[in-house]
Amino acid sequence: MAQSDEFSERDGERSIDLPDSFDAGLFFIGRIHTPWRSRQDCPKNSSESDAVCTIEVEARYADGLKDLDTASHVIVLYWMHRAPRNLVLQRPRHYGETRGVFALRSPARPNPIALSVAELVRIDGPRLEVRGLDCLDGTPLLDLKPYFASTDAKSAAEVGWHARTRR
Amino acid sequence: MAQSDEFSERDGERSIDLPDSFDAGLFFIGRIHTPWRSRQDCPKNSSESDAVCTIEVEARYADGLKDLDTASHVIVLYWMHRAPRNLVLQRPRHYGETRGVFALRSPARPNPIALSVAELVRIDGPRLEVRGLDCLDGTPLLDLKPYFASTDAKSAAEVGWHARTRR
Repeated sequence: MAQSDEFSERDGERSIDLPDSFDAGLFFIGRIHTPWRSRQDCPKNSSESDAVCTIEVEARYADGLKDLDTASHVIVLYWMHRAPRNLVLQRPRHYGETRGVFALRSPARPNPIALSVAELVRIDGPRLEVRGLDCLDGTPLLDLKPYFASTDAKSAAEVGWHARTRR
Repeated sequence: MAQSDEFSERDGERSIDLPDSFDAGLFFIGRIHTPWRSRQDCPKNSSESDAVCTIEVEARYADGLKDLDTASHVIVLYWMHRAPRNLVLQRPRHYGETRGVFALRSPARPNPIALSVAELVRIDGPRLEVRGLDCLDGTPLLDLKPYFASTDAKSAAEVGWHARTRR
């Protein structure tokens, strides 16, 4: 896989040997179109941008969008195709401390599946317009799901290390 | 892939031909242990059960859990390994209407990645105890992420078709 300099190992980080073979396979079912062409351009997180992005679902899967237009928000799963997968301990530049990969939303993870909750603006055939994404233009799409507040919204949730960092 | 009778095509459903090859590969990074041994036993959704389930992360990835214990809730991504992947239109038995797969949280989808938001009870080495899962015992784990209320909680979100069904 492509490993660019922006992902090179920093002091305190740790990489592991990955297994020799995969356990399951994924289909890229579409592409996400955004205004951002490099990782530096991307917003830090989805709440930092109001840009309307376009998700284009491949024709063979388009029937699967039926009734999704009744949802106000969708869960978008996508593939962080440029990220290395072996960094179990990471030191994000903007935090400066070493944390476990599963305590971070870093794109670099054993299975680089990213998740965003996006506001659905409209659906036109195989194309969705959404607000609230922060990924690179051309990012491969893995899945779309309706967002149910009853099970997915935990307004009181806290991430201790992050709250302390921001104080 | 294994397709059991519970997933056979029903009236109004539609299956597609899937691509000949995969675009990316996944590692199973652990297993989820729950009280449920068959799909019929599983709760309909995570809010229907308070059972504490155990997530066992494989030793090679265990360092990646550092600092996750400061999070109150975790996003659990797992692989629905028994589900067919070609049903773009589905008629769930308990709703009785045909909907697109991307408007449903059905395990049967082109990339059968499921997502649950679980309450973190404790972490002991490579083992997490969580509340709020509804999957089969032995389900393969794909990823763990900290849940950030600021970007992940959308309390006012609505799914129109579902709200109408429940009235």
